[in-house]
Amino acid sequence: MDKEITIYDIAKGVGFSPTTVSRALNDHPAVNKKTKQRIYDIAAQMGYRSNLFASNLRRQHTNTIGVIVPILNSNFQSSVMAGMEKVANEAGYNLIISQSLGTMEKEIANAKTMYNSRVDGLLVSLSHDSESIEHFEPFFKKGIPVIFYDRVAEHKQSTSIVIDNVQAAYKATTHLIEQGCRNIVHITGNLKINVYTDRLKGFKYALVDNDLPYKKASVIATDLTEEAGIKAAEQILKMDPRPDGIFVANDFCAVNCMKALKQAGIAIPDDIAVVGFNNDPITRVVEPNLTTIDYPGYEMGEVAARNLTNYLDALSDVNITNTVTLRSDLIVRESSLKKKLKK
Amino acid sequence: MDKEITIYDIAKGVGFSPTTVSRALNDHPAVNKKTKQRIYDIAAQMGYRSNLFASNLRRQHTNTIGVIVPILNSNFQSSVMAGMEKVANEAGYNLIISQSLGTMEKEIANAKTMYNSRVDGLLVSLSHDSESIEHFEPFFKKGIPVIFYDRVAEHKQSTSIVIDNVQAAYKATTHLIEQGCRNIVHITGNLKINVYTDRLKGFKYALVDNDLPYKKASVIATDLTEEAGIKAAEQILKMDPRPDGIFVANDFCAVNCMKALKQAGIAIPDDIAVVGFNNDPITRVVEPNLTTIDYPGYEMGEVAARNLTNYLDALSDVNITNTVTLRSDLIVRESSLKKKLKK
Repeated sequence: MDKEITIYDIAKGVGFSPTTVSRALNDHPAVNKKTKQRIYDIAAQMGYRSNLFASNLRRQHTNTIGVIVPILNSNFQSSVMAGMEKVANEAGYNLIISQSLGTMEKEIANAKTMYNSRVDGLLVSLSHDSESIEHFEPFFKKGIPVIFYDRVAEHKQSTSIVIDNVQAAYKATTHLIEQGCRNIVHITGNLKINVYTDRLKGFKYALVDNDLPYKKASVIATDLTEEAGIKAAEQILKMDPRPDGIFVANDFCAVNCMKALKQAGIAIPDDIAVVGFNNDPITRVVEPNLTTIDYPGYEMGEVAARNLTNYLDALSDVNITNTVTLRSDLIVRESSLKKKLKK
Repeated sequence: MDKEITIYDIAKGVGFSPTTVSRALNDHPAVNKKTKQRIYDIAAQMGYRSNLFASNLRRQHTNTIGVIVPILNSNFQSSVMAGMEKVANEAGYNLIISQSLGTMEKEIANAKTMYNSRVDGLLVSLSHDSESIEHFEPFFKKGIPVIFYDRVAEHKQSTSIVIDNVQAAYKATTHLIEQGCRNIVHITGNLKINVYTDRLKGFKYALVDNDLPYKKASVIATDLTEEAGIKAAEQILKMDPRPDGIFVANDFCAVNCMKALKQAGIAIPDDIAVVGFNNDPITRVVEPNLTTIDYPGYEMGEVAARNLTNYLDALSDVNITNTVTLRSDLIVRESSLKKKLKK
């Protein structure tokens, strides 16, 4: 059997470090175009069987699944990841993970790396600013399945795993209205992302169905960080008349908003009732405990991975072109229970 | 070029599903011994170039790094993972992740999968009940670098990335003593794990250096879960005399212990001062805010991955046989500030 040509052989041949060669062959942005071309040429001459050069090997299965997430260190995403790993591992697949860190540029680079790594399938939650999913076209063209979850995009060849964000937000807002709130503020994230536009819709629909006016000034779009929660609280304190309810699209932000409101002497839920989203562990730690939407991250990870592995192992004949909607429930806790407290 | 033999070809040849063949070749526990042997034999006959059969290809680099963690959905581990992904991605490496779910059995299976996946190197945080690291011997024998972090083990060929757990616990306990605590309880995890034995040491040393007695009854060993915190609080409430300080080896457990104590009418820090460990985001949400040790998870992930990639890319000549100790600081918040509050 012939000795395999390695990036180290190419490195010797071309006079660059193995790192540079590896990066060039993976089309890494840190290597300039001219250098890349030179490395490509020499690699081809030497008969290197890289991913780019061995398209005839493409259909070989690697038993790996690529995962692209916006960020790994969030409670939601790490729960998703734990669910994915469990299912993938049991089905005999390795999970390759990468973070887009919220930028489309990084997401494009990650998709390219995954493609060149010959993943058998891809699980993706889109970045904040991904305005197109063109960078997944190579996968669709090769028939490599792509499953979107949470932050999804429509594509005729892909499956999306979601919760009904409109309905969840509708439930949360209706609950505040039932508790007597008449002037509700909605704190949300980047409205380019489907989950936030859908939650805004649910907020609006609940108002209109209860004959309450929808005012644009009642929607505060933020980046949903700790600081955003504090700033939103400051904005709310300045509003006249003062709101009597807040629905926040993320628990972490809700908790910090609540903290700032409490420090300003606002009683929760008596003065202002608060509802969050996700059912992050902090909701059971903050005082009063936060009412929230239970977003089943671990289950979403399991379902996404199982859909993919069943498809790859041909255990499911289901055409990979649908939407799976998971259940999400309102969990009522003290932060919104005006009526009970007033008894 | 000959067509590569795939697991699908073997599946046809042997009359099992591709999943079973894949599992058998990866020595998955779900496939019985006899079936495995049959699949091995046929695969060898057909000339399958699997990981097990192509040892001559072993030194080929795959530009992948394997990561084995106890559990993915913990704030600490997901921070570590985020740091690792950033560094690995920048250096042109893919990260393959797997969870041992706290059992040595699963860790052994994961190590085998990583080995067969031809990872270039391995980053490992050991499981709760790993009493030996023999399952990493194949890596050591092949010269594949293994770096342990957080939950580490000694091996002459491996590097460990740690914080000084003895010193951190010593600082935490000394702080409680300085605040006037004389009867301190330590809530800890599985004492088979280095991090917890070291924290217990730091606790003891601080007591002895301050002429306070060390009583075995003051150490509560738990699994550090939410429930464990609540149970520990019940135990503490029954102690006579009642303790005036608690040092908990994990924030999540500390917060739930605090919650239960508060519900029982205990004033924190006045009656009992509390210090946690990790600097999890919940420490800034709980009331009063929790004093804790800042454990730099993201940085630990970066350092572990950078050590590995530098070694793999031969950017560092450093023999891979040392310990890297990261800084960890005591962050003082209201949960332990007896003196300030008594002013």
